[in-house]
Amino acid sequence: MRIELAHGSGGKLTKELIENLFLKYLDFDELKALQDASYLNVKKKRLAMTTDSYVIKPIIFPGGNIGKLSICGTINDLTVSGAEPEFISLGLIIEEGMEIETLELIVHSIGETARRAGVKVVAGDTKVVEKGKCDSIYINTAGIGTIKRELSPLSIKPGDVVIVTGYVGDHGIAVSIAREEFDIDVPVESDCAPLNSLLLPLLNLEGIRWMRDPTRGGVATVLCELSETASLGVKLYEEHVPVREEISFICEMLGYDPLYLANEGKAVIVSSKEIAETVLETLRKHPLGENAAIIGEITDTFKGVKLITKIGGERYIELLEDDILPRIC
Amino acid sequence: MRIELAHGSGGKLTKELIENLFLKYLDFDELKALQDASYLNVKKKRLAMTTDSYVIKPIIFPGGNIGKLSICGTINDLTVSGAEPEFISLGLIIEEGMEIETLELIVHSIGETARRAGVKVVAGDTKVVEKGKCDSIYINTAGIGTIKRELSPLSIKPGDVVIVTGYVGDHGIAVSIAREEFDIDVPVESDCAPLNSLLLPLLNLEGIRWMRDPTRGGVATVLCELSETASLGVKLYEEHVPVREEISFICEMLGYDPLYLANEGKAVIVSSKEIAETVLETLRKHPLGENAAIIGEITDTFKGVKLITKIGGERYIELLEDDILPRIC
Repeated sequence: MRIELAHGSGGKLTKELIENLFLKYLDFDELKALQDASYLNVKKKRLAMTTDSYVIKPIIFPGGNIGKLSICGTINDLTVSGAEPEFISLGLIIEEGMEIETLELIVHSIGETARRAGVKVVAGDTKVVEKGKCDSIYINTAGIGTIKRELSPLSIKPGDVVIVTGYVGDHGIAVSIAREEFDIDVPVESDCAPLNSLLLPLLNLEGIRWMRDPTRGGVATVLCELSETASLGVKLYEEHVPVREEISFICEMLGYDPLYLANEGKAVIVSSKEIAETVLETLRKHPLGENAAIIGEITDTFKGVKLITKIGGERYIELLEDDILPRIC
Repeated sequence: MRIELAHGSGGKLTKELIENLFLKYLDFDELKALQDASYLNVKKKRLAMTTDSYVIKPIIFPGGNIGKLSICGTINDLTVSGAEPEFISLGLIIEEGMEIETLELIVHSIGETARRAGVKVVAGDTKVVEKGKCDSIYINTAGIGTIKRELSPLSIKPGDVVIVTGYVGDHGIAVSIAREEFDIDVPVESDCAPLNSLLLPLLNLEGIRWMRDPTRGGVATVLCELSETASLGVKLYEEHVPVREEISFICEMLGYDPLYLANEGKAVIVSSKEIAETVLETLRKHPLGENAAIIGEITDTFKGVKLITKIGGERYIELLEDDILPRIC
């Protein structure tokens, strides 16, 4: 069975799709009411809101699919902003002719990822466009969360340390290999994961300054932006950045820099030097933070991001002008 | 100047696009912070949330464009749910090669529509896909609003009346003509408008039961769904449904039924018979409600939607199986 244009018409087929497929996997009370908007209770009047569209290619990759990715991405954006993710809305744009079985796999994954992470999908919309006017499926998720603590890059001070919660580059390489653009047979999985249970406990530590998930553009882009916003310098130690051996190997072969590769289950954290070890210990107790490491420090002796290479050289790294891997998330 | 893939990479060009174009028109404080999530204050802990993707073709049509539409649609979904729209997130999926001038027109329209309606765009995301993987631009908006009053179709009682806030079918016909699918030269404009200032005052009236905006599938679809959810019948008087002469004329020519055509600036309201005249008076004082009319009544003598035709005949109307006008919103 395949998706037809009429599945997006708001008529009979839309109703069947909603009742037989969406609500089967997304059995959240707020969604089931099927009204124009869902009613929900938040814990505080101060909230965080975020949105992201996912246009990843291919839609299924080792370690995840576009559905899981869309939920993790929104959970992570809220979490790194110091908010507890609570409610997510889901907008699907589907290409006519998509296999309903594939759609089912994706929606199943959305439901499971949300439930496991303790968030609810409360609003949804489905549009279908003609064959050739989309690439199987695009997903938008918007999310709201209750603020536990407001974080700002302006709270960052010279002497603070930069921590990454684990191996970088897995997502970028996993998706590249799944595209079969090159003939590599190394098993690499995307790190796609919801980080709320890993990161929210850290918000109780006084010295936590700021967090961000290094997706498009990777750790390098996040640090360049941080440096600009905070008007401070970042010293980044290449040898301390955790990169899996197979990722390093593939990067060398293909000429990628793991620092610019997208991650979907990692965070960059800036904390005071005093609590750095506590942060590391806390992270390492969680399966998603086992390989956490201190990778750099904040300084006011220069601006920008200076990479101290493995052989002891120094060079500034910058925002890329070109996209090395379009449609990675 | 045209959109390139790199405008969606999260790197330099994305940054330029955000700073030089998006923030120029969307100068909302919450958005300007450019964080992964925006912080915002809501008025109550009980909220309404909604989402919609817009894949309309063409993206510019008489009376509006996809940008204005995306803001109006989300404002209206919140409003008919009894909520005061407050915050909107904006997800753009742009096709490589889109004229930046056209994008600018759309974003300008988004900003203007939001400001005039008193809502804020607080979160955004931009993705760019390869030429041929989208149709110029798709937009997702999600919105949150403060609940003023919770409305439920289950509060509807036999004897209640059905009101529509104005002429039906304008949007559907305006977009069809803009597609140049047929050679008609009648000036028709979409009714695309934010309804919060028209409808929110009605929520103070005790006898207001339920409201809905008849977009995809039109008034007929909304009433069919209402009848099913409430397990009641709807008597719909064709001669009382306000339809512009030119729309009637075009519908007859093309074989469309105005009852099934999409509207983007209208609401269907169910109220007690007692307050029906007050509702009409209130609506008619507002420019967007001048042509409001009572078009039907609720009954428990049958189920479904029975149309009393202009010549006095009777027939049941049903959900359409096929989409008469795909990608109308």
